[in-house]
Amino acid sequence: MSFNKLPLEPLYEKIEELKPKFIERLSKAVSIKSVSGDESLRPNVVEMSAFLVNELTNLGFEDIQLKDLGIQPPPVNDPELRLPPIVLGRYGNDSKKKTVLVYGHYDVQPASKEDGWSTEPFELVQVEDILYGRGSTDDKGPVMGWLNVIQAHRELGWELPVNLLVCFEGMEESGSLGLDDLIAKEAKNYFKNVDTVCISDNYWLGTTKPVLTYGLRGCNYYQIAINGPGADLHSGVFGGCVAEPMTDLIKIMSQLVDGKGKILIPGVYDMVAPVTEEENSLYDDIDFSVEELNAASGSNTALHQTKQDILKHRWRFPSLSLHGIEGAFSGGGAKTVIPAKVIGKFSIRTVPDIDSGKLDELVINYINKLFKDLSSPNTIKAELIHDGNYWVSNPFNDSFTAALYATQHVWNMKPDFTREGGSIPITLTFEQQLGTDVLLLPMGRGDDGAHSINEKLNIPNYINGCKTLGSYLHYYGKFESNK
Amino acid sequence: MSFNKLPLEPLYEKIEELKPKFIERLSKAVSIKSVSGDESLRPNVVEMSAFLVNELTNLGFEDIQLKDLGIQPPPVNDPELRLPPIVLGRYGNDSKKKTVLVYGHYDVQPASKEDGWSTEPFELVQVEDILYGRGSTDDKGPVMGWLNVIQAHRELGWELPVNLLVCFEGMEESGSLGLDDLIAKEAKNYFKNVDTVCISDNYWLGTTKPVLTYGLRGCNYYQIAINGPGADLHSGVFGGCVAEPMTDLIKIMSQLVDGKGKILIPGVYDMVAPVTEEENSLYDDIDFSVEELNAASGSNTALHQTKQDILKHRWRFPSLSLHGIEGAFSGGGAKTVIPAKVIGKFSIRTVPDIDSGKLDELVINYINKLFKDLSSPNTIKAELIHDGNYWVSNPFNDSFTAALYATQHVWNMKPDFTREGGSIPITLTFEQQLGTDVLLLPMGRGDDGAHSINEKLNIPNYINGCKTLGSYLHYYGKFESNK
Repeated sequence: MSFNKLPLEPLYEKIEELKPKFIERLSKAVSIKSVSGDESLRPNVVEMSAFLVNELTNLGFEDIQLKDLGIQPPPVNDPELRLPPIVLGRYGNDSKKKTVLVYGHYDVQPASKEDGWSTEPFELVQVEDILYGRGSTDDKGPVMGWLNVIQAHRELGWELPVNLLVCFEGMEESGSLGLDDLIAKEAKNYFKNVDTVCISDNYWLGTTKPVLTYGLRGCNYYQIAINGPGADLHSGVFGGCVAEPMTDLIKIMSQLVDGKGKILIPGVYDMVAPVTEEENSLYDDIDFSVEELNAASGSNTALHQTKQDILKHRWRFPSLSLHGIEGAFSGGGAKTVIPAKVIGKFSIRTVPDIDSGKLDELVINYINKLFKDLSSPNTIKAELIHDGNYWVSNPFNDSFTAALYATQHVWNMKPDFTREGGSIPITLTFEQQLGTDVLLLPMGRGDDGAHSINEKLNIPNYINGCKTLGSYLHYYGKFESNK
Repeated sequence: MSFNKLPLEPLYEKIEELKPKFIERLSKAVSIKSVSGDESLRPNVVEMSAFLVNELTNLGFEDIQLKDLGIQPPPVNDPELRLPPIVLGRYGNDSKKKTVLVYGHYDVQPASKEDGWSTEPFELVQVEDILYGRGSTDDKGPVMGWLNVIQAHRELGWELPVNLLVCFEGMEESGSLGLDDLIAKEAKNYFKNVDTVCISDNYWLGTTKPVLTYGLRGCNYYQIAINGPGADLHSGVFGGCVAEPMTDLIKIMSQLVDGKGKILIPGVYDMVAPVTEEENSLYDDIDFSVEELNAASGSNTALHQTKQDILKHRWRFPSLSLHGIEGAFSGGGAKTVIPAKVIGKFSIRTVPDIDSGKLDELVINYINKLFKDLSSPNTIKAELIHDGNYWVSNPFNDSFTAALYATQHVWNMKPDFTREGGSIPITLTFEQQLGTDVLLLPMGRGDDGAHSINEKLNIPNYINGCKTLGSYLHYYGKFESNK
């Protein structure tokens, strides 16, 4: 199906007309302090789930469910603390239509004026065409966006071109506790007819051009524990007489990556899929520059000097970062300690076609060999402490194509097809558990400051974002069902 | 003067007779919680100084002074907090006699039953011939020892063979704040006729053989700060794209010392005084073994397999320890951070004839060259953050010879002449400010657990220690005055 504009102008006009109501809806959502990482604010997170149930009910959703996830596992202060529920809802149940599952989260990062906010973080404040407030872009804006789309259709008297399922969770900022289990459980139940999943919980690469995101790197996190003396020792008394665990650890950590970011563990790059000609050409059009990277890092520490090289190293090549050392002296000033046990932490960002298990083997064997070469009397244990696989979608499938057309229609420009260097583990979970495609369709800009102070969402992004989400459903509905 | 036993048996008998009173004196001292590191216990530290003034007064000391050291400098919770006073006292003022200044400290390390003590730490508890309690060996035992010596002389009706000055401080466990200034100020006043200084504030090397200590290593403490991004970054978004400060720092730290403890900074060993034949032979007799080192470190991580090699590396060769990193991730678990600024900490234990300033130059130039070779866009600042010089005395001078004779007389064996790997900065201050020799004459054993739980002093060490301190004054008094 090639791009033929659908007659969506009435929808766009309605959305423009409802703009004040949509801002008010987001304003109410932002005013609820649904910080999942602060136990004392857990009632507010629960209040936010009730707010959503009320909105969904008023908009005519059916089979609305609050999925209880039980007690929050330790570490918690309150051993009776319950996880906030997952909100499920359905709009339309026509077996002739395709079914789109949208995911979003209603919890937010902590925020307080004292952190340096220019405005009250839990009050949506409009300054010119920008809406400031915690959760405005991450992820209450997009969640309200889906509700806005339904409202616009109802006021127009339009039928929705697809069946829509919503899945809104309240623990995304705190590890999505309970979500994987719920998806597994509902895959053949609530989610059984889902054709595709759309997640609006990431951002444009820059500030001027919409993007569709088709790839994420994975992350394998390792630690190297080196054990020596029975207790921390005084460096005056023992320095020069005992094999110090720090010396061994630093020696090993220094041989993992070089100053240019090249991973020194043999065999890792052999697993990386070669860059094809087709893929190579994708990078040329993308709106990005070394200056943007430097602005984002607040420094001139870029390792690559062209847009293409930077983006490839962010998205499709592996990287290794040394994060720190547990057990060593980490305070200010001076302490003359020989730490008895030190644990070095590092992680590798993974990309196609790195096999996670094979990577672990390469990493751990390499570290053990380096340690053996030291002939140290200390002992070592190198291990993986967690992993999450990379994700790459086919950016030419129906869902991405529908999002491409929707974006072109609304923004009057072709979006960039981007990946991200970080991971959104839930993406892979949906793909694997439901056996469907997943589309990442962001609403906000790269400078929105999610997780930071002065988080914001530009009104054009909010309103055109609503149009894009709605249009996506219409274009997607035009594709032949795969069922 | 060769060793001819002086007729000191009456003194020894008197000390044995007074043993219950001496234990009672130590018991009173231990019961005062004079923890200098705990602001809330500052009144108890002051109470301890009053206890000493009372004892000195009863024993006939003259010109007793409580030297006020003013307000404790920050960081403190109470900005009005006063330092505990230094207690000075004089016993005898005969210009025909030599003058010995003894130094000790009346403050102690923190202690609480919850730390794992088997007994109440601030109660002197006797179990068989061992006295348990905080400060028993460090340093209330030796301080009471000097008072005991005077009491024994008085009860015998003996004149003291020297003039004795005492200088007891209350901040030794908290950096000896104010002491350097006081010594400088009193060098030409209260301390003006001092011939030698005797400090009893260290320990035997082992548990069976007395020692005299004639050397201490110094310590130059350095930090390497590497600055990159403007703020901590997410390793998913920036990993592979920016030069990470941790990578540079670990690279540099890995090139400072090898796994065998060899310092890799060129030129350091060139400054180390060669081991002479005479010195070499000193190590053979010393009571020590690799098993004792392993027992002390709680591991089998010794870098050297002979007693001689271990002791030389502890006492008279430099060593370099990597202490840790400030600014990197140091907690448990996993955090995918790229730290923006990291500060590596390490120190070098110094020995004769390392020139401290020249060492700084070698170290900092070497680090800067290593960094330059990395061609990193980050910035570096390597610097010394504090230093203290090594100290070595002539172990054949009058003061050491007197202590040798005293030890032979009391213990019926020759003491080991030892050094220590750590530093006691005040030793060098007395030597330099007063222009006299300093003798380190320990009372307690190597396993007394100063600074640890279940700190103890064996009664034979306490009582024979008193005899040794007293005998030392007698043998020293027999030497011709240097004045």
